[in-house]
Amino acid sequence: MRTAYQEQLSSLTVQLSEMCGLAGVAMERATQALLQADLALAEQVISEQDRLGEIRVRAEEAAFMLLALQGPVAGDLRAIVSGIQIIADIDRMGALALHVAKIARRRHPQHALPEEVNGYFAEMGRVAVDLAHSAREVLDTLDPEKARQIRDEDDAMDDLHRHLFSVLMDKDWKHGVTAAVDVTLLSRFYERFADHAVEISRRVIFTATGELPEDNLAEPQ
Amino acid sequence: MRTAYQEQLSSLTVQLSEMCGLAGVAMERATQALLQADLALAEQVISEQDRLGEIRVRAEEAAFMLLALQGPVAGDLRAIVSGIQIIADIDRMGALALHVAKIARRRHPQHALPEEVNGYFAEMGRVAVDLAHSAREVLDTLDPEKARQIRDEDDAMDDLHRHLFSVLMDKDWKHGVTAAVDVTLLSRFYERFADHAVEISRRVIFTATGELPEDNLAEPQ
Repeated sequence: MRTAYQEQLSSLTVQLSEMCGLAGVAMERATQALLQADLALAEQVISEQDRLGEIRVRAEEAAFMLLALQGPVAGDLRAIVSGIQIIADIDRMGALALHVAKIARRRHPQHALPEEVNGYFAEMGRVAVDLAHSAREVLDTLDPEKARQIRDEDDAMDDLHRHLFSVLMDKDWKHGVTAAVDVTLLSRFYERFADHAVEISRRVIFTATGELPEDNLAEPQ
Repeated sequence: MRTAYQEQLSSLTVQLSEMCGLAGVAMERATQALLQADLALAEQVISEQDRLGEIRVRAEEAAFMLLALQGPVAGDLRAIVSGIQIIADIDRMGALALHVAKIARRRHPQHALPEEVNGYFAEMGRVAVDLAHSAREVLDTLDPEKARQIRDEDDAMDDLHRHLFSVLMDKDWKHGVTAAVDVTLLSRFYERFADHAVEISRRVIFTATGELPEDNLAEPQ
């Protein structure tokens, strides 16, 4: 029979997983809104942001109560401490999806992106959403092997980010400064979203093994 | 007489304060490196980054051991949980200072910034360093009143950020796309640095009062 303590711990895990799912859906929709200049979808991402914040508050309270009342040790303590850190990462992922949606809304009815770079963002969106799915799977399974693969997926994002910057810096860039500023910020948002997924995977590896992998993210600009 | 427990808790506080001090110094030097195109100073910021990482590892271990061995409750538990979150915020502040230094290094011997926007960045640098000082003071004193003032200081950063973007988006921008990209990223780095200082102040208010102020940062783009 499960104790109340085990119930609480597993409820924290479910909240993290749910948050990660919401962040992934938000980024998926924000990317569609950006690529299609779809105002309704952008508004949906923006209005649904509160839900992530509500779960965040509940998850932080749950983690706090587990620490206060249960005196967890070893693997359980690692899970809760990692959970507190992961909550902040997922919250940022949601905020970054929100930023993407806000740029789509600000430029509507125009497209924020010059057509030349649409393909990059379609691909960055795909990788970001895949990373959110993978991070959620890792949270659900606590599988350190799967967690280690997330870093490789993130390499694809870094490559896209670098290529995009070479397009942007090329003297043939014909789309003006406003588009360049939007593309710069958007690219940064996708890249940071991916970094947070990697950070979640590091924390899960710590939970599962007691060893925190080195934080050697080579963040491109 | 102080117990070993109190010693450990106060040592965690000292580590947070030290980290915050290092992040502030890093941003001060990175800003100088940027404004003066000072390669040696940029290299110094980059090479000293590891020190922040080392303290981070020790501080996280200290927080974990306090939770594992001491079963803290109430205010002490809040201090430790907040400490874990604050460590991540300060770590990002250091990373953002590092990004500024790296842009200064990449553009050397040129200046990364067109002279027209130097004043904005001198001011953003000043506000960022002030915020790091204030955050450190708040960490040292746990004074919720002082912590609340940090949000007002951050408003100055948001104003600078917005003004700078209007300069950038103006059709009279004559400095090309590469400079626009650098200015966009740099401005974002300063603004995020300030946001993390605000986040530290929220966590200190929670530690001191048990109430977490609303997370209503209006992040400009």
